[in-house]
Amino acid sequence: MESRGNGSSVDKGVDFANYFCTYAYLYHQKEMLSDRVRMDAYFNAVFQNKHHFKDKVVLDVGTGSGILAIWSAQAGARKVYAVEATKMAEHARELVKANDVENVVEVIEGSIEDVTLPENVDVIISEWMGYFLLRESMFDSVIWARDRWLKPDGMMYPSHARMWVAPIRSGLADQKKGDFNSAMSDWYSFVADTETHYGVNMNALTKAYREENEKYYLKTSLWNNLHPHQIVGTPAIIKEIDCLTATVDDIRNVTANFMSSINIDHTQLSGFAGWFDVHFRGSMQNPAMSEVELTTAPSTEDYTHWGQQVFMLHPPPRVNKGDSLTVSFSMSRSKENHRLMDVEFAYELQQASGQRHPRITSKFYIE
Amino acid sequence: MESRGNGSSVDKGVDFANYFCTYAYLYHQKEMLSDRVRMDAYFNAVFQNKHHFKDKVVLDVGTGSGILAIWSAQAGARKVYAVEATKMAEHARELVKANDVENVVEVIEGSIEDVTLPENVDVIISEWMGYFLLRESMFDSVIWARDRWLKPDGMMYPSHARMWVAPIRSGLADQKKGDFNSAMSDWYSFVADTETHYGVNMNALTKAYREENEKYYLKTSLWNNLHPHQIVGTPAIIKEIDCLTATVDDIRNVTANFMSSINIDHTQLSGFAGWFDVHFRGSMQNPAMSEVELTTAPSTEDYTHWGQQVFMLHPPPRVNKGDSLTVSFSMSRSKENHRLMDVEFAYELQQASGQRHPRITSKFYIE
Repeated sequence: MESRGNGSSVDKGVDFANYFCTYAYLYHQKEMLSDRVRMDAYFNAVFQNKHHFKDKVVLDVGTGSGILAIWSAQAGARKVYAVEATKMAEHARELVKANDVENVVEVIEGSIEDVTLPENVDVIISEWMGYFLLRESMFDSVIWARDRWLKPDGMMYPSHARMWVAPIRSGLADQKKGDFNSAMSDWYSFVADTETHYGVNMNALTKAYREENEKYYLKTSLWNNLHPHQIVGTPAIIKEIDCLTATVDDIRNVTANFMSSINIDHTQLSGFAGWFDVHFRGSMQNPAMSEVELTTAPSTEDYTHWGQQVFMLHPPPRVNKGDSLTVSFSMSRSKENHRLMDVEFAYELQQASGQRHPRITSKFYIE
Repeated sequence: MESRGNGSSVDKGVDFANYFCTYAYLYHQKEMLSDRVRMDAYFNAVFQNKHHFKDKVVLDVGTGSGILAIWSAQAGARKVYAVEATKMAEHARELVKANDVENVVEVIEGSIEDVTLPENVDVIISEWMGYFLLRESMFDSVIWARDRWLKPDGMMYPSHARMWVAPIRSGLADQKKGDFNSAMSDWYSFVADTETHYGVNMNALTKAYREENEKYYLKTSLWNNLHPHQIVGTPAIIKEIDCLTATVDDIRNVTANFMSSINIDHTQLSGFAGWFDVHFRGSMQNPAMSEVELTTAPSTEDYTHWGQQVFMLHPPPRVNKGDSLTVSFSMSRSKENHRLMDVEFAYELQQASGQRHPRITSKFYIE
């Protein structure tokens, strides 16, 4: 109790219970290891840029089952420190041994913030990206590791990250509205039944029940792998991150104002989708031979386990080709759990005819 | 981290994150309030025994939305202390007010262990039962409240509880075995693909993956509302609890040896089901005018949200009418989370012909 509703201090035990648990399941590791877009990107980034790893010291932050550490060793690293907070560290150790790189890879079980390394490192490699890039707030730990352990001329894998937002159409908006309406009509029957059978009037909780269900059905962002045809206007980059220089303050709050031109006629603006890409470019002094991009944008074939985060508007306005949207976006960390996010979209629709609609603001939660 | 893998001390923050969270949702409260078997039992227990409440002081441990406290007041209590650890306390307060009992019911937000009452109480009422009675370990808090706040001649609502076990047949056993087999064949494809595409041999984790999936699919008890026809042998009472005298030591470990006679021919012993009932009998000195029973036994119509916990045997033996089972049951608290349970069934099958099969032991987890 005492640790909830207070975003400024993080109870490590609670954080572990809420967050790290899932990563201790091989089932979950397998899901990530089966994401071909993710795997191909890191694999190509490492093996097409072996000069960044040959004879270098590498730190893998949150190694999980150890795959990035093993690749780093296979690419020629002199030493790899593979840090993992969960019991998955034991499995990483087994895997390292079974793949004959135990002379190079040292698996260390512990939070990166608590670990002491015997030397600074040339490369930090990490797969730290959450839904819509920043959910989970794991990049904080990578920043911490970089500031503490990366050599001045060291480099980051990935080196850059970007967040994108685009207006979309989707049947999910109507579906969720339907689910919400069912939940409420169910509630009204419940209130009537409880009064009839048990002599207690529950109506005093109707407002709170409505709020709880609005949050759950209408204001919580949804995971989805969208088809590119569902994008109805020009996407915008809302955040660019240089992994070598970004600070926690840079990513704690993300705000952006952007325009989007609707490019599909007679459709519904169901909401907005958010996704990210990351890039492996090495560093200024020591650029990649082959730049690799990992994108989680809507695609006809390259689905990722990240998908996109979808924020539905209720009610969804009708839009037409030539209309333009002026959007203010902001995202901050949830006060109750710093790994989750509160999001706000404020948009103004200007029709091709010139008519302007009043600005509408919607709040969302990334859970 | 520091709070996991150590069952002897409970980190309150972690416990709150893991356990109390759910109870802060009205959705969950509504589910419990919609359980007619549960509601009817408490309603009848209170209103058919108003003499136990008239002018008395009542304590409701874990009041949730406040329903038992409101009924206690409606039945004539002089004062009701309604203690609730979660934010649900605020809703209980609203409901108490809306039902005009705010002069009698005092809602107190806090853990029962931390709360100070101005007086001792005549009655403790609580709906503390978890799956298979003891999951959640909430009865610990009721015992604590009883020892601290109940008057020497006070009474408990409910007054008694029993745990039952019976041999059953169910299609779930084959279904879960199929799910497990699919998960493993999927794993083998994954291992082959990862070797081919990414040069890493994951086979070292096959044993651990198998164990993880055996635990998940085969060794974790399942929630189910069984039909009475699925019971294939005589049920046995494995534990009786007098709520007025039971100690935490009495319920920490449950062990029982019992016999069950198979009473259906040519069937499969898919496993065992566990359920409970509780009784409202008042006390020896001040018995109930009308004894009420709340049972969660398999039924054709009286489904409860508790259902039964089902423990599947793999492989399931064939049994026949006249066979008898000798069963040793034991249940203890999980070392990792004291609110979850580890269960062991050891059974010996003796056929009607006299042939004895060797004893088989199976371990399970109630998650």
